[in-house]
Amino acid sequence: MYTNLKRTLAKECVKKVGETVKVQGWVKKVRHLGNISFLVIRDRTGEIQCVLEGELAGFIVETESVIEAIGEVVSTNQTSLGVELLSKSVKVMNKNSLLPFEVNKKELKAGLENLLNHRVLSLRHEKIASIFKIKATLEEAFREYLTDLGFIRIFTPKIVSQGAEGGANVFTFNYFGKEAFLAQSPQFYKQMMVASGLERVFEIGAVYRAEEHNSSRHLNEYISLDVEMGFIEGCEELMELETEVLKYMFEKVKEKNENELNLLKIEVPIITEIPKLTVHDVSEILKKHYKKEMPEGDLNSEGEKLIAKYIKETTGSEFVFITEYPKENRPMYTMPSENGLTKSFDLLFKGLEITSGGERIHEYEMLVASFREKGLNEENFENYLNTFKYGVPPHGGFAIGLERLTARLLGLMNVREASAFPRDMNRLTP
Amino acid sequence: MYTNLKRTLAKECVKKVGETVKVQGWVKKVRHLGNISFLVIRDRTGEIQCVLEGELAGFIVETESVIEAIGEVVSTNQTSLGVELLSKSVKVMNKNSLLPFEVNKKELKAGLENLLNHRVLSLRHEKIASIFKIKATLEEAFREYLTDLGFIRIFTPKIVSQGAEGGANVFTFNYFGKEAFLAQSPQFYKQMMVASGLERVFEIGAVYRAEEHNSSRHLNEYISLDVEMGFIEGCEELMELETEVLKYMFEKVKEKNENELNLLKIEVPIITEIPKLTVHDVSEILKKHYKKEMPEGDLNSEGEKLIAKYIKETTGSEFVFITEYPKENRPMYTMPSENGLTKSFDLLFKGLEITSGGERIHEYEMLVASFREKGLNEENFENYLNTFKYGVPPHGGFAIGLERLTARLLGLMNVREASAFPRDMNRLTP
Repeated sequence: MYTNLKRTLAKECVKKVGETVKVQGWVKKVRHLGNISFLVIRDRTGEIQCVLEGELAGFIVETESVIEAIGEVVSTNQTSLGVELLSKSVKVMNKNSLLPFEVNKKELKAGLENLLNHRVLSLRHEKIASIFKIKATLEEAFREYLTDLGFIRIFTPKIVSQGAEGGANVFTFNYFGKEAFLAQSPQFYKQMMVASGLERVFEIGAVYRAEEHNSSRHLNEYISLDVEMGFIEGCEELMELETEVLKYMFEKVKEKNENELNLLKIEVPIITEIPKLTVHDVSEILKKHYKKEMPEGDLNSEGEKLIAKYIKETTGSEFVFITEYPKENRPMYTMPSENGLTKSFDLLFKGLEITSGGERIHEYEMLVASFREKGLNEENFENYLNTFKYGVPPHGGFAIGLERLTARLLGLMNVREASAFPRDMNRLTP
Repeated sequence: MYTNLKRTLAKECVKKVGETVKVQGWVKKVRHLGNISFLVIRDRTGEIQCVLEGELAGFIVETESVIEAIGEVVSTNQTSLGVELLSKSVKVMNKNSLLPFEVNKKELKAGLENLLNHRVLSLRHEKIASIFKIKATLEEAFREYLTDLGFIRIFTPKIVSQGAEGGANVFTFNYFGKEAFLAQSPQFYKQMMVASGLERVFEIGAVYRAEEHNSSRHLNEYISLDVEMGFIEGCEELMELETEVLKYMFEKVKEKNENELNLLKIEVPIITEIPKLTVHDVSEILKKHYKKEMPEGDLNSEGEKLIAKYIKETTGSEFVFITEYPKENRPMYTMPSENGLTKSFDLLFKGLEITSGGERIHEYEMLVASFREKGLNEENFENYLNTFKYGVPPHGGFAIGLERLTARLLGLMNVREASAFPRDMNRLTP
């Protein structure tokens, strides 16, 4: 009986009033009232209430078990869906036998460590799941927008023989007898792909930082949305591109994740033009308005928060580009401008840096000189540097930290909340 | 003069006859004929010929340098584009000073090692670039198709505390004093994400195999297109899904990469239904038709080639699913069927395995028993195994090796040709 019935999703039941359907999902709630029981079944599209009467009443099942219910869809004004299922049969497909915390309350009452230790379970809560649905949309929109502009999706190696920034914060391992590193960024490779003639490239991939941070802003493995573009006329073009990409990403989230945004009570900021301030201007503003001295030509996290507050109050923007960082605070491949400054920028979103970007040096001699100036041995960067003998066009790019962007957009206090299985100094599981 | 002129791409010049435009790209060819010179400039959209007369004739520039030419677009029947540029000014933006091999011949005459050592340069050849444009389309289509079916794009960690298959072929490193591994596959994590209630997930990411292979079919770092789906009714559903995904991917390549396919002289196979054979049937066929004995319940690479040949000859299909592998040849999470067999499959494309897939065990006790049967210590898999106490639906999935798929589709002899910067036992650069 009913063996040929295909699964119907909770949301689709609305269109099936009067029909017999098979619903499968997780038991969100069980309620027994004398000779009638109510089960709420949750699947990836939503929830449906199943009414169990007669001999089905009193059906025993643990919440969060996987269940199948077959029955007739009937209209009701008792549920937000407007329909419920009058069950004819119900069976447990796989029982839940472990429940470290209750996931079916309106708010999930468990600390972050507990949530992360039991990720599979905490993701059952629709507010937590919403974070990852929105994260997926942000990434989807990023690639869609760039693909439409003729950017090519590239895949560059994460096993490398040299860390991009040349610093100490790299994970090191033995690669068939050679010393290898986990890539800190696809920086060198995305520049090489521009130089290869693809001109416009993007990559969506993990990057690795062996930094001994233990803050709410850092992950040791995160997803970097990387862009690199050839034949640019200057840094402005990159900031324009990033503004447009972000606009598109936010619009797509509004369009595709209305439910999730409502659930999380998030209003997506409208991006028009993003204000720009030089790092020097920022120092002046912080001194004048907040009596704060910043490190020369840079911003610490307190400075980021204060200038974001200032910009929000004076312009209404949640974003601000900080430009013209001095050479000593930017990597060796950054294009210098005048007076020891560079053609570079960071982007702050709600007071947190979510992007670094800039124009890169494209001439071999200038690049070698810049490596030397930073005290780097050019022999260690032979493959990268040789690229610049092949005729490389003016180019630049930027990278957006996907977890930071997601966390900021959704008002999450800790960037770990935007990573399904975060990696930090103390966390290597699950 | 002309300083406000925006760059015009080669392909766009067709629509600008009579206009003055600025073209930027790489010098593909230089030809001097008395008091007239011809430069062919290549950019990401194609090529345009620039005619240099009068004092511009004899302009000296190395091929592969980056150049800017400003001039009037005029009609001609001398170029395939139908237009050329009568140059008014020309300048070198960045010179090329190194040319290990000539990239501007119709065929690139350099060995694979040489091509890979000078990847940036070999990618300048339009046939090589075409591989990566098509690879990008395959990945784009994969995600598009799955997103439309309600699959969510996930990001799972590549830094893990346990290799998915539990084998020895993992790269190991020190993670803040703990032993960590590079993930061999997102297997455990994609199953956990299904169990978390997302139900349908996919991932596009690097996987790492420390295998000491040195063959034309293996990479130590490659891109895995991973799918996992909950509430399946059986293995058939997974093979159907993969068939449809591949159909969509191939259609998209035909639609989007017509130029590249023409250049590479590739005809994309039309996928209708993909034939299925049990591994037992395959053995019988190989014995009967080719007098070949295969290892019990498995296929070696010779067997893969022969059965592919057989299927191609008897059905016309370039693909074949091989099903019902015995338990001892499949990983511990594979759902058993009867007589020591499993609900699993491989997919061969032109004689090469490009996919492994199957239904997974979703019940805790059965899974623990299967781990024990394989001699694995379940304590090492605690986080994964605990998931199955939470109520996990029937599920399964598969993974497609993106480089293998690309190489097979394009008739490349070596899978390394489908990786921009391949990693193998001997190669860690560029």
